[in-house]
Amino acid sequence: MHKNIRVGIVGYGNVGRGAELVLDQQPDMTLVAVFTRRDPTIIKTLKDTTVVISYEEMASYHDQIDVMLVCGQSKDDLPAMSPEIASMFNMIDSYDVHAEIVEHVERVDEAAREGGHTAIIGVGWDPGLFSMHRLLGEVVLPKGQTDTFWGEGLSQGHSAAIKGIEGVVDAVQYTIPKKEALNAARSGQESHLPAADRHTRVCYVVANEKDHSRIEADIKTMPHYFADYETVVHFINEQELKSNHHLMKHGGFVIRSGYTQPAHHHRIEFSTHLDSNPEFTSSVMVAYARAAYVLNKQDDVGSKTVFDVPLSYLTPRPITDIIKDLL
Amino acid sequence: MHKNIRVGIVGYGNVGRGAELVLDQQPDMTLVAVFTRRDPTIIKTLKDTTVVISYEEMASYHDQIDVMLVCGQSKDDLPAMSPEIASMFNMIDSYDVHAEIVEHVERVDEAAREGGHTAIIGVGWDPGLFSMHRLLGEVVLPKGQTDTFWGEGLSQGHSAAIKGIEGVVDAVQYTIPKKEALNAARSGQESHLPAADRHTRVCYVVANEKDHSRIEADIKTMPHYFADYETVVHFINEQELKSNHHLMKHGGFVIRSGYTQPAHHHRIEFSTHLDSNPEFTSSVMVAYARAAYVLNKQDDVGSKTVFDVPLSYLTPRPITDIIKDLL
Repeated sequence: MHKNIRVGIVGYGNVGRGAELVLDQQPDMTLVAVFTRRDPTIIKTLKDTTVVISYEEMASYHDQIDVMLVCGQSKDDLPAMSPEIASMFNMIDSYDVHAEIVEHVERVDEAAREGGHTAIIGVGWDPGLFSMHRLLGEVVLPKGQTDTFWGEGLSQGHSAAIKGIEGVVDAVQYTIPKKEALNAARSGQESHLPAADRHTRVCYVVANEKDHSRIEADIKTMPHYFADYETVVHFINEQELKSNHHLMKHGGFVIRSGYTQPAHHHRIEFSTHLDSNPEFTSSVMVAYARAAYVLNKQDDVGSKTVFDVPLSYLTPRPITDIIKDLL
Repeated sequence: MHKNIRVGIVGYGNVGRGAELVLDQQPDMTLVAVFTRRDPTIIKTLKDTTVVISYEEMASYHDQIDVMLVCGQSKDDLPAMSPEIASMFNMIDSYDVHAEIVEHVERVDEAAREGGHTAIIGVGWDPGLFSMHRLLGEVVLPKGQTDTFWGEGLSQGHSAAIKGIEGVVDAVQYTIPKKEALNAARSGQESHLPAADRHTRVCYVVANEKDHSRIEADIKTMPHYFADYETVVHFINEQELKSNHHLMKHGGFVIRSGYTQPAHHHRIEFSTHLDSNPEFTSSVMVAYARAAYVLNKQDDVGSKTVFDVPLSYLTPRPITDIIKDLL
């Protein structure tokens, strides 16, 4: 197969590195370059052959890249970065601030339309694949309830929140679905429990012993992040944290329970079980890069989400092949 | 919401009855009529208000129906019926003969294009939602293995095959995934076991005692259906069969195990757990009726599959709503 889709990566953190890795698994894509706001000469890429270029030079790659994978931080980078890149390139981002996602989609839409580009927003597993299943659930079972569970997995946002507490040397936080809540969701009980009642938060914290009780209280009373949750705090030493808690495993469940008539219950369930949250996120982004490329060839410009993309746009295989093999 | 999509049902078996039931759950659809090749006066519908019309009069409803749900038998009815209906109406069918599905899609495509209609083929849970997950799995994890498991559930095709054996009064057959095979698929072992090694077939048969051993042998040696499978045959009486085996429960799993790098395994899994196989199938068909309606309004005619349809076409809700609530 012709390697016809030329891809760029913006930002070389965990997701950017994941993208470099999984681009090698695609029969129809080539990595042109990684763009960074850091000094390109200090970036150590996974592959020696990967070209690293300064973010400022990105515009000059306008004709050499078909789709850009924007691998920045949602809160700090993407609100400005995604529209800027969408004005120059077709692009994918994994923007995940749910409360502001409508505004983000609109901002990117305007920039993408002006540039004649296609931008797919909020691509990963949540938002992304989980969003698709929240929609699929309610359309195939209009009467029912959808529950999303996250974990068991390491939450980077919550780990960072703990690290922000005075006296904390290092910390990780695991989100764990409560078994009873999972069972209730599966059994079709319309319990409507909020996320705080369906998950436990388990924290491993490195800190000086004299600060332990104050830090534990600070964590457990932190609004939004922990205050509403059953939270368990373990203090461990730095060595233990590095040895046992360096993996970025994550995953979760989207469960739709519903009925076609009161006596006939049905459940559909989608789950992810991931050894590396950022690598899987980038793998989903890479599949959607193919869709951005196809949509743009059809002059379908502006911002899109996973809801707008037919699955056939995600595969390099011809449609007759996938009908024959997979339908 | 305006009830703007006018729907017809062709065929009033289990799936047709399911469609009548779930159309009531849709805010934007009206059931215009059920069409039957039987005498319409003998059809007892779930709702008294449902209009039943002879199949022969269908053409005269050309201007009164936006989408037809074709609820006939795949093997006997749909090869001729689906193209015939696609020439007159937008339509959905749940054609499930995998070996001939490419030809079916082509036949329907020709008829639909001539009539200027949109036909979505192979809609249900398998083919349908499971097909989508077989595709989704291989695009987000290109390196890996996909396994589909069916059951625990009642297989109508296999039950019918047993009933065809001389001396069998009645029978049901359950397909049951083997636990070890499910675990192997989940663990990412690329075992490549064929379906026959991943499922057990359990049969409940009513027959005269003198025929038991011959019938058991006939079942266990039946090519394609049972010969390659671990098959268990129980003989029970007619009363027991009617009391304990009248539900059409079914379900299954699509499991994709793959990796982004050798040490980082990931799994995505989709499963259905259904009290009524035909009612859930019809519920999926009804959601796709919305997509056929939208696609046709966009002059996107011909035959389609679930691979071609963006999820946003399945919901009556505006896209900004679903971005805000579900992304």
